[in-house]
Amino acid sequence: MSRRISETTVRRLSLYLRILERMEGQGTSTVGSEDLADRAATTAAQVRKDLSLFGSFGKRGLGYDVPKLAAELREILGLDRRWSVALVGAGRIGSALMEYDGFPDRGFDIVAVFDVDESRRGSRWSGATVMDVDRLEEVVRDRNIQMVILAVPGSAAQEVADRAVAAGAQGILNFAPVQLRVPEGVSLKDVNLVMELEALAFALTQPDVEE
Amino acid sequence: MSRRISETTVRRLSLYLRILERMEGQGTSTVGSEDLADRAATTAAQVRKDLSLFGSFGKRGLGYDVPKLAAELREILGLDRRWSVALVGAGRIGSALMEYDGFPDRGFDIVAVFDVDESRRGSRWSGATVMDVDRLEEVVRDRNIQMVILAVPGSAAQEVADRAVAAGAQGILNFAPVQLRVPEGVSLKDVNLVMELEALAFALTQPDVEE
Repeated sequence: MSRRISETTVRRLSLYLRILERMEGQGTSTVGSEDLADRAATTAAQVRKDLSLFGSFGKRGLGYDVPKLAAELREILGLDRRWSVALVGAGRIGSALMEYDGFPDRGFDIVAVFDVDESRRGSRWSGATVMDVDRLEEVVRDRNIQMVILAVPGSAAQEVADRAVAAGAQGILNFAPVQLRVPEGVSLKDVNLVMELEALAFALTQPDVEE
Repeated sequence: MSRRISETTVRRLSLYLRILERMEGQGTSTVGSEDLADRAATTAAQVRKDLSLFGSFGKRGLGYDVPKLAAELREILGLDRRWSVALVGAGRIGSALMEYDGFPDRGFDIVAVFDVDESRRGSRWSGATVMDVDRLEEVVRDRNIQMVILAVPGSAAQEVADRAVAAGAQGILNFAPVQLRVPEGVSLKDVNLVMELEALAFALTQPDVEE
């Protein structure tokens, strides 16, 4: 069965999980869809619709079992396991990502870092040594790396993406300000920081346009 | 007239603008919707639909005038002017943002930087001195700052957002991993790097789900 799940739905699922885990930490055992919706700044109908995509959770009148729903969401989102991630580009953005605790906390281990710049090589970052980008294919293949983060200049991004995909990477998180092409079956997410500010500029410029 | 423009439409407009500016730099004077669509990895119908939201561009059979459409898109996106931006949080992510050329290149000037940590204060970053976050309201008001980038811990984000909004900020770009609440009329964009990887994990875990 092929269902169409939008990016915004996946984001809400991630958000529900965060909220449920916080509640779990506070010892809360059940939550109603209204309460969950309120904490996620959405509606109860939206919460029920989002969750119904993946089966039947919660009991009428009793709400959702917090630890159980959190575990279900972790499984749905693929967060009940660890992921091996490679980072290409050890510049400013790359360095910030490399030292970002949020990734390992969530099961994403940056196990390999690559850079073209020789002066950046050899330095160790929480267990990973910065390697020559020439070794990308070999390392992606040998270490069974599924996800690659691209923090390289726009001019290099497509080539690096092609090589990562050819070596077996199935997911690309792209920070380069270019539109990449990846084969079908490979997932691509873009983080374009300038575009985020542009979206704000648009909202502030066109106040008559609802978003 | 209130029209509903989705976030993905705004992203495509930003992307079209990038493509057009690159073509402009290469001296290309006209482009067809097929060609533009191809470069943006979308369809010609989508390009025409996106642009038709803002008026009538291009001539049947002749395509779009590249410099003219680029100028129109800059105006639509609010990029025909400069924006004063404040950055709160001079930690790792904040530092990477501060030194990111992409912002001034696009008209976004980080004119003020704030941090709670005294040891980070006083240092100058491309013209902006890191200030005590206690001065946030005063500086936002005096310098007529419209956008605020939050690169603070999740626990501090809502309070800082409230203060920035109270002082007159109309747009917030939030890097903290929490769901913020802002009053109606204020625009909020979230960049949650962990959620981006989670979206990849989801796509790799649920390959039967089209996205």
